[in-house]
Amino acid sequence: MNMKPHTSKNFETELNNLKDKVLRMGGMVEAAIGKAMRALEWRDAKLAQTVIEEDHLVNRFEVEIDEMCVGIVALRQPAAEDLRLIITGLKISTDLERIGDLAVNMSERVLELMDAPQSASQADLMRMAQIAQGMLHDSLDAYVDRDADKAEAVCKRDNVVDDINRQIFRALLNQMTGAPAGISGYLGLMNISRHMERIADHSTNIAEMVIYLVKGKDIRHTSFAK
Amino acid sequence: MNMKPHTSKNFETELNNLKDKVLRMGGMVEAAIGKAMRALEWRDAKLAQTVIEEDHLVNRFEVEIDEMCVGIVALRQPAAEDLRLIITGLKISTDLERIGDLAVNMSERVLELMDAPQSASQADLMRMAQIAQGMLHDSLDAYVDRDADKAEAVCKRDNVVDDINRQIFRALLNQMTGAPAGISGYLGLMNISRHMERIADHSTNIAEMVIYLVKGKDIRHTSFAK
Repeated sequence: MNMKPHTSKNFETELNNLKDKVLRMGGMVEAAIGKAMRALEWRDAKLAQTVIEEDHLVNRFEVEIDEMCVGIVALRQPAAEDLRLIITGLKISTDLERIGDLAVNMSERVLELMDAPQSASQADLMRMAQIAQGMLHDSLDAYVDRDADKAEAVCKRDNVVDDINRQIFRALLNQMTGAPAGISGYLGLMNISRHMERIADHSTNIAEMVIYLVKGKDIRHTSFAK
Repeated sequence: MNMKPHTSKNFETELNNLKDKVLRMGGMVEAAIGKAMRALEWRDAKLAQTVIEEDHLVNRFEVEIDEMCVGIVALRQPAAEDLRLIITGLKISTDLERIGDLAVNMSERVLELMDAPQSASQADLMRMAQIAQGMLHDSLDAYVDRDADKAEAVCKRDNVVDDINRQIFRALLNQMTGAPAGISGYLGLMNISRHMERIADHSTNIAEMVIYLVKGKDIRHTSFAK
């Protein structure tokens, strides 16, 4: 490990490497969500399997980001805003890892749905996925650019996803009651919908932490954030 | 804020305060899980409502712990193991907050089950809850005592919870198919079971981080941890 006193240029490079790594991890889980949904749409077992197999790469990113953060704090003893950037990176890596897990869970459900007929709720699921992916993407852009406005816009979109999730739940519950033989398949779609809703929640968590990062004010668990 | 150079006694006190706060937050969410399960057993809407209303206290703890951690790092510039203790505290607060959310979600499901008949799966749910609460409790004890053995024992119990969750899922799916009129109630129990399984996962996350804290080795996402 390099124990020489830091020049600000080195430090800047380290922070940029951290942000870059967070973005790359984010890109990876965003792609995983996309693959899981395409696998559902096309009943593509191989694609669903890919998401499951590639999850260890996401996990490795979390460990690497955490080590990077601990290393920078230990060596550079950053103050105020830089310290918050690093702490936020630590928290974001947890959310991204969970999103990766959710993409894996969705893919496992997709594998069980290979022979199930297409459902009307699938179109809603796709719409939900698109919004959730956008929220994830924008929350990480907001982190890298320290852009509180973009982060606030992410928080506001969470309600839309919650609404779609509730609609899907009601529609599937009706279909279940009418056709008990298909219960298993409807349950699978219900789970995928719930997982997607949680992905939007994690993206909202990230956005809330970005607001904390920029404004130095913790808005988590306030009425604004709800 | 106290900007005087720190004496090691002050620093020790701060670390103890941090550990104490983590334990108190842990005790609060452990109690929330217990209340949610008693509310299910006794069909006690008022108790379920209490869990929902008290969640803001859990949320406040997360913000306070995070601020405490950032404050200690900024002022004390701790090295090596102390820094890891603080970083672990930051990660644990996230897990505890999510467990609090899961207790709220369970309580919301319990409120919908007020008129549902008792189900045979409830006994399994209670057993699962007991194990998950024990895992949570032990993982936090392991954190405070830096006890890697205790943390490893927590990780190993996660499989038991996963097995019970699968049993409950299969039993409820059978009951659903046989009696579609009760689907809504069975879905509620299924969700409570899944939430409990996630509480055990969060406790396992905490235990894995404690092992990292003690051994300086990250065992998250290794075959041991699975």
